[in-house]
Amino acid sequence: MASADGSKLWGGRFVGDTDPIMEKFNASIAYDKRMWDADIRGSKAYAKALEKAKLVTAEEKDNILHGMDQIHDEWAKGVFEVKPGDEDIHTANERRLKELIGEPAGKLHTGRSRNDQVVTDMRLWLRDAISILKGNSLQLITTMVERAAVEIDVLFPGYTHMQRAQPIRWSHWILSHAVALSRDVEQLQEINRRVNVLPLGSGAIAGTPFNIDREMLRQELAFDDISINSMDATGQRDFIAEFLFWASLCLTHLSKMAEDLMLYSTKEFSFLTLSDAYSTGSSLMPQKKNADSLELIRSKAGRVFGRCAGFLMTLKGLPSTYNKDLQEDKEAMFDCFDTVHAVLQVTTGVVSTLKINPSVMEAALSPDMLATDLAYYLVRKGVPFRDAHGISGKAVFLAESKSIPLNQLTVEDLRTASPLFSSDVSAVWDYSSSVEQYSAPGGTAKSSVAAQVEYMRTWLKKQVQ
Amino acid sequence: MASADGSKLWGGRFVGDTDPIMEKFNASIAYDKRMWDADIRGSKAYAKALEKAKLVTAEEKDNILHGMDQIHDEWAKGVFEVKPGDEDIHTANERRLKELIGEPAGKLHTGRSRNDQVVTDMRLWLRDAISILKGNSLQLITTMVERAAVEIDVLFPGYTHMQRAQPIRWSHWILSHAVALSRDVEQLQEINRRVNVLPLGSGAIAGTPFNIDREMLRQELAFDDISINSMDATGQRDFIAEFLFWASLCLTHLSKMAEDLMLYSTKEFSFLTLSDAYSTGSSLMPQKKNADSLELIRSKAGRVFGRCAGFLMTLKGLPSTYNKDLQEDKEAMFDCFDTVHAVLQVTTGVVSTLKINPSVMEAALSPDMLATDLAYYLVRKGVPFRDAHGISGKAVFLAESKSIPLNQLTVEDLRTASPLFSSDVSAVWDYSSSVEQYSAPGGTAKSSVAAQVEYMRTWLKKQVQ
Amino acid sequence: MASADGSKLWGGRFVGDTDPIMEKFNASIAYDKRMWDADIRGSKAYAKALEKAKLVTAEEKDNILHGMDQIHDEWAKGVFEVKPGDEDIHTANERRLKELIGEPAGKLHTGRSRNDQVVTDMRLWLRDAISILKGNSLQLITTMVERAAVEIDVLFPGYTHMQRAQPIRWSHWILSHAVALSRDVEQLQEINRRVNVLPLGSGAIAGTPFNIDREMLRQELAFDDISINSMDATGQRDFIAEFLFWASLCLTHLSKMAEDLMLYSTKEFSFLTLSDAYSTGSSLMPQKKNADSLELIRSKAGRVFGRCAGFLMTLKGLPSTYNKDLQEDKEAMFDCFDTVHAVLQVTTGVVSTLKINPSVMEAALSPDMLATDLAYYLVRKGVPFRDAHGISGKAVFLAESKSIPLNQLTVEDLRTASPLFSSDVSAVWDYSSSVEQYSAPGGTAKSSVAAQVEYMRTWLKKQVQ
Amino acid sequence: MASADGSKLWGGRFVGDTDPIMEKFNASIAYDKRMWDADIRGSKAYAKALEKAKLVTAEEKDNILHGMDQIHDEWAKGVFEVKPGDEDIHTANERRLKELIGEPAGKLHTGRSRNDQVVTDMRLWLRDAISILKGNSLQLITTMVERAAVEIDVLFPGYTHMQRAQPIRWSHWILSHAVALSRDVEQLQEINRRVNVLPLGSGAIAGTPFNIDREMLRQELAFDDISINSMDATGQRDFIAEFLFWASLCLTHLSKMAEDLMLYSTKEFSFLTLSDAYSTGSSLMPQKKNADSLELIRSKAGRVFGRCAGFLMTLKGLPSTYNKDLQEDKEAMFDCFDTVHAVLQVTTGVVSTLKINPSVMEAALSPDMLATDLAYYLVRKGVPFRDAHGISGKAVFLAESKSIPLNQLTVEDLRTASPLFSSDVSAVWDYSSSVEQYSAPGGTAKSSVAAQVEYMRTWLKKQVQ
Repeated sequence: MASADGSKLWGGRFVGDTDPIMEKFNASIAYDKRMWDADIRGSKAYAKALEKAKLVTAEEKDNILHGMDQIHDEWAKGVFEVKPGDEDIHTANERRLKELIGEPAGKLHTGRSRNDQVVTDMRLWLRDAISILKGNSLQLITTMVERAAVEIDVLFPGYTHMQRAQPIRWSHWILSHAVALSRDVEQLQEINRRVNVLPLGSGAIAGTPFNIDREMLRQELAFDDISINSMDATGQRDFIAEFLFWASLCLTHLSKMAEDLMLYSTKEFSFLTLSDAYSTGSSLMPQKKNADSLELIRSKAGRVFGRCAGFLMTLKGLPSTYNKDLQEDKEAMFDCFDTVHAVLQVTTGVVSTLKINPSVMEAALSPDMLATDLAYYLVRKGVPFRDAHGISGKAVFLAESKSIPLNQLTVEDLRTASPLFSSDVSAVWDYSSSVEQYSAPGGTAKSSVAAQVEYMRTWLKKQVQ
Repeated sequence: MASADGSKLWGGRFVGDTDPIMEKFNASIAYDKRMWDADIRGSKAYAKALEKAKLVTAEEKDNILHGMDQIHDEWAKGVFEVKPGDEDIHTANERRLKELIGEPAGKLHTGRSRNDQVVTDMRLWLRDAISILKGNSLQLITTMVERAAVEIDVLFPGYTHMQRAQPIRWSHWILSHAVALSRDVEQLQEINRRVNVLPLGSGAIAGTPFNIDREMLRQELAFDDISINSMDATGQRDFIAEFLFWASLCLTHLSKMAEDLMLYSTKEFSFLTLSDAYSTGSSLMPQKKNADSLELIRSKAGRVFGRCAGFLMTLKGLPSTYNKDLQEDKEAMFDCFDTVHAVLQVTTGVVSTLKINPSVMEAALSPDMLATDLAYYLVRKGVPFRDAHGISGKAVFLAESKSIPLNQLTVEDLRTASPLFSSDVSAVWDYSSSVEQYSAPGGTAKSSVAAQVEYMRTWLKKQVQ
Repeated sequence: MASADGSKLWGGRFVGDTDPIMEKFNASIAYDKRMWDADIRGSKAYAKALEKAKLVTAEEKDNILHGMDQIHDEWAKGVFEVKPGDEDIHTANERRLKELIGEPAGKLHTGRSRNDQVVTDMRLWLRDAISILKGNSLQLITTMVERAAVEIDVLFPGYTHMQRAQPIRWSHWILSHAVALSRDVEQLQEINRRVNVLPLGSGAIAGTPFNIDREMLRQELAFDDISINSMDATGQRDFIAEFLFWASLCLTHLSKMAEDLMLYSTKEFSFLTLSDAYSTGSSLMPQKKNADSLELIRSKAGRVFGRCAGFLMTLKGLPSTYNKDLQEDKEAMFDCFDTVHAVLQVTTGVVSTLKINPSVMEAALSPDMLATDLAYYLVRKGVPFRDAHGISGKAVFLAESKSIPLNQLTVEDLRTASPLFSSDVSAVWDYSSSVEQYSAPGGTAKSSVAAQVEYMRTWLKKQVQ
Repeated sequence: MASADGSKLWGGRFVGDTDPIMEKFNASIAYDKRMWDADIRGSKAYAKALEKAKLVTAEEKDNILHGMDQIHDEWAKGVFEVKPGDEDIHTANERRLKELIGEPAGKLHTGRSRNDQVVTDMRLWLRDAISILKGNSLQLITTMVERAAVEIDVLFPGYTHMQRAQPIRWSHWILSHAVALSRDVEQLQEINRRVNVLPLGSGAIAGTPFNIDREMLRQELAFDDISINSMDATGQRDFIAEFLFWASLCLTHLSKMAEDLMLYSTKEFSFLTLSDAYSTGSSLMPQKKNADSLELIRSKAGRVFGRCAGFLMTLKGLPSTYNKDLQEDKEAMFDCFDTVHAVLQVTTGVVSTLKINPSVMEAALSPDMLATDLAYYLVRKGVPFRDAHGISGKAVFLAESKSIPLNQLTVEDLRTASPLFSSDVSAVWDYSSSVEQYSAPGGTAKSSVAAQVEYMRTWLKKQVQ
């Protein structure tokens, strides 16, 4: 035998007719069984199409549907038994159908290929998964928006470059992250439109013969559209790639929020405290309370993007139509769903239970954060902003030289920088009125933040209609 | 001085007040000058808003507009002179404005920050870039669709797993790639909706004071919407990340088509010949004609995805709002635009000029590719497909044992596999009728492919309305 | 209670004292239990160090060792029971030890932290994994080298740009891939030197107190070195990142070989046939025999690089020392090991069992592939190569115009390109002598390929010493 | 003409004999001219080998060498003129040689291909680049080590999970990063061994004929080894992939240090102040001083890893030998070199000029950071660590309940947690003695940190030998 001879000649691993490592390498049942329900739904719809095309009788169809329902029960109850030859969920279910109903089972695959079957299963599965993630996202956004509504009066430092920049509302910060997540939801819905397209009836590559009614299949399975070209339908996984990237961008958003929250919960900032439910201790240091939840949230952006990167690399340069390489699609899809599903829920838990320390937050506001306001004071007196910026900068320098806060400079001190300063400058040093300047849409004035809350509430209502 | 002392103590690079390497490292003018026109448009609109808010007089506004027009001319003529202090396009243009019109230039930045300015520039620039890429994509798709319409009668082997699978139409293959590109166009338009949102008026972080009318800015600059939250507006680069991924998926599509075409243009396949304009020779081997264009197309998927991966990694774990890390956004955006722009045009050139060899393509069809049809013959006689598939497999094996083509088996030979074979089996061995079976939507029958052509033509018309 | 109140106010998920999703999200036992043996080895060594430091008595140490051996047995027999509170392998083993031996178990963690414990476990585990992968690689290389030795006389077309370039030996092709793999082995050994460094005794961050003898720990656990700095030791995962990249480059090599083999096993090339053990059929098309093994091999480069990309992205911008984000290290490490482990073995199987078709391979050699030799003929007569290249190119063009093979041109034909051609040109048209020109080291002459075989055999011997 | 007809039929871009976009797309001269010196060195060595093989005369060789020297001068003076036909540096230099010396120039390429020429150039170029980066790295490490030596007495909080963990030495922190960089240097040297291998003499694919003496070429060009297999030599870019990953890991290290430094330079931490040379201001906020240098350093890890990811993806699934896709190698290599080159120097500048605030750093130490020491106090009295950890935890909780620092608990308070506490517990509350406990190798005790300094000094000396 060739292989045996071969191994004698050049000493490879002995293989007989089969190589158990290859069989395991090739099989996908270990993970694709997760699509058992989608596979059954697809096959039931297909049985109906076969009847319409007169490829099975009404009785055979009923047998198939009945058998499939029984298989459904077995999976649902956790008693379906995967057998050695079941390399994937499709063969497993068909093998079981044969055991249950005999010969008509052999008609189910007429005009169908695993190439169109598997991608139909994936689209059915992912459609449901997207619906769940949308729900998780909306719950998180709702939590954030309502928290923002309640805590609208809390001020704290806004940072750029991790340095104190200007006083802002805590709710303004919350909403900045909620708004990013609302884009994620919109993008997810766009992806869903491309997911919700029926490929069944594309066969292996050339399409389906026998008058299979694809429109009927579409209705049975509640797809929005049918695929346009059978080669594309069986060989493309764009909807997976798009989903993996969606997960990456969504978790990158949450990595950003987690980073902020971690910073705010350091001893040095002390702006907020996580609930114990989302913190853990140290095996060595008794005093430690670590924000493990936030670190895990931050880390997962890498994980899911890795899946996206891996899958894109696998796709790169593949020839058209189905190639076995595409089998990498499912583990990536499942892992990204599971990860985002958990992260969204944990983030909701973190956000809804953390306690802020408003007095510490407001105490962190410092007069130098009003240097822009000092410049604006001059702008209002007619000084071009560039000059006003320079004069305010001189005042900052002067205060630093004197080691006093900016608002402790006397009017005389300020006049060394510009003669336009007069006693009304004292009105500048008020954080509450400072924030109220930013009343244009998107700004941090109370009216503007309240408008953002209303905007988001309206948006949320639209999502669940 | 600290630095000098420091360097004495621990021997670092000597630095005085400035470090020229740091200055170069920090500056973005070398590449962001490409946005000169967007920067000018944004500033002109902003000058109008300043006038409305009574922060500049009508005359000052006119001076600013006039000055900006002059700067526009200088850039357009290639005579704008970048000076040492111009670290970015914003400072360069404002510096020049000051030179041209004096003091009013200092008022232009009132209530504005580079944080909202730069992202406004990028959105203006990218909006135009997307429009160009959409045009390039439509041109390529049009070329493909029209070529498919003309060559609809050419048959050749459809491959799965790089192995001959079933006879298909060459036009079916072309359309499978055109359909993928049409998804790219749709996705690009969705991204554009998120690009076309005005961030100006978000200031550094807190928003804009002074009654700057953001709605007026939106209209001036023809944005569809205004940003909802100023912190998000200045600190997010989702639209860049989405664009980079879009470029990656689009070029992954083209890497797939390039791979097919490379395969088809090997000596061994000889299905087609590239135009000389898209081939190159070898410095060593006089007979070589290499499909360099296709190899370059294939390679660029990696390049642009690298940009996407790099930028996502840069974004991961960044805190909120503007951080200098975001400066990585522009080179990535420019490079991906340039690359996709070139690839789409070169691909259009390749596709419109390649010559197919129909006789070689049809000669590559072999009777074993009709093994499925042989099974279908039995299905039509009532044999369950699973059994028919097995019987056809036996016939294939028999033909291989006899070293004859499948269609050379006699009816007697075939009957050893199943008694249902009779002389009408000879009708199976016709490639032209084989393809006509696949008349369901998306299939490779002539009617079905023609319908795809019409579908795409209609779709194309909608895109340019 | 804060969380309950919170959830009332802004409607987050209700959470009590714990959030089961957070607990599952946080726990690593599901995968890190795979390091049970390494964890036990580390703890046994640590118990000895504790005794030396007089932190446990000899009897306590013996109890610990004995208990650990018992735990080892439980894991080995598959009867170790993971309990709800066991968040990771470290707590699971210590919890079990407490059950088995009581109080002394509470002393085992003295001066140790999970921060240094987990990274010690990982290094022990990975060291073994690397040893296995080295073995797999050497087996594959050996198979390739010995096959190259046996089939050294087979000629076939060498391709560049997927176009026929020059005649080469089949063994030359095999060795080109073996040589790449030998670099992988060398790089793996370099990585192993950085893996095989003891971090234990670094504590959580500051180091270890109590005179724990790190040198003794090193010897007990057979590490080559001890880590230099405790903060670096507990917070770095460079050795994981290096391993993930190693896996990526190694599988990129195999994706290249797989691509070649897939090409060579198309119907159109027909250079070789895969063993049935490494091929699979189609659910639809009875005649199909797909090279699934090669497609899977090709696909896995993407998968493992995705792990590498994901982990690097997780690492980016993390602050120093241990952060929970690092928990992403283990699944990446396990998955890459498993994948490379399987791929190397399957590739060995494929390579050792595939059958080449020498007659088809040699028949694929065509006279135009000797156009370089034709130029060399002129070079030997004193024509500068650039001119000779041009003349040979003219001959190629002439043959194409006449639709005849290059070697069918008459001497007269050739003389239209250059008067230096004479009847001795006929000697050029011999593939066997053509390849013998390339006798410099690394070339495709028989002597040179044989030298490569010998070089590799010697190299292989060195690896197992 | 085919192309014109084609465009009429299906409306593609018109192309004549050439497509200017394709020509630009194909050309690499815009960036590969950077290797002009390497290309000249390679050609000079090759001319000598040609003479030895009697393919050029001594005089011709001298002409070539002389011509090449002249071209060298032109490049060095910036007067070399790239002409339209010069698609890459190789054709540009050879074209110029022809202009300068006439016919012998046409002999230079005998037996050579651009395939082996380009990769020789790249290896020569990268070898020099690596040498520069090694020097930059050593300068940075030296700066860090010497700074650590000087500031060894400064204590500050060590953090894990971004939370205060244990008191450590500032120098311990510095060294933790220096040690990581020393691994980068070692890895870079290993890569250099694989870079420094001569591919010249591999031709296009099959090797070199004509008795070209590759060993002589190796010596001329000072390579350590010659490549083993010509197909591998011309078609592999592993050394580039390795270099790109090296750059990624190195900059990931620096992103970690930058993140720490950014944290430490926030107002809230105030542990250190960057030199003005490495900070910048805000266009809007006069008081801002941003650590732009650190943000840029942090961001570049993404950039270079993007190059690595892009290149690996380009390599994935390529067939053997030279494919034009490999042209992506050079821009990636140049960009990663430039980026790491700048980052290393800027980091050296930052580290050598930043000013620490020792009093703030020490004031940030808090008694709860000694909770581990409190547990150790009990361990020394015989309490198993697990119990001691629990008792110390109770004490922490008690102090929190009383809102007093841990060290303000009375002995009576402590005794409610354990009767073993007595008045000698007061000795625990000393940060200076706390750190001295960690005297094992790698720990934060003064002796141990001093030993790390010495270790690194010795290591540094070895690197420059």
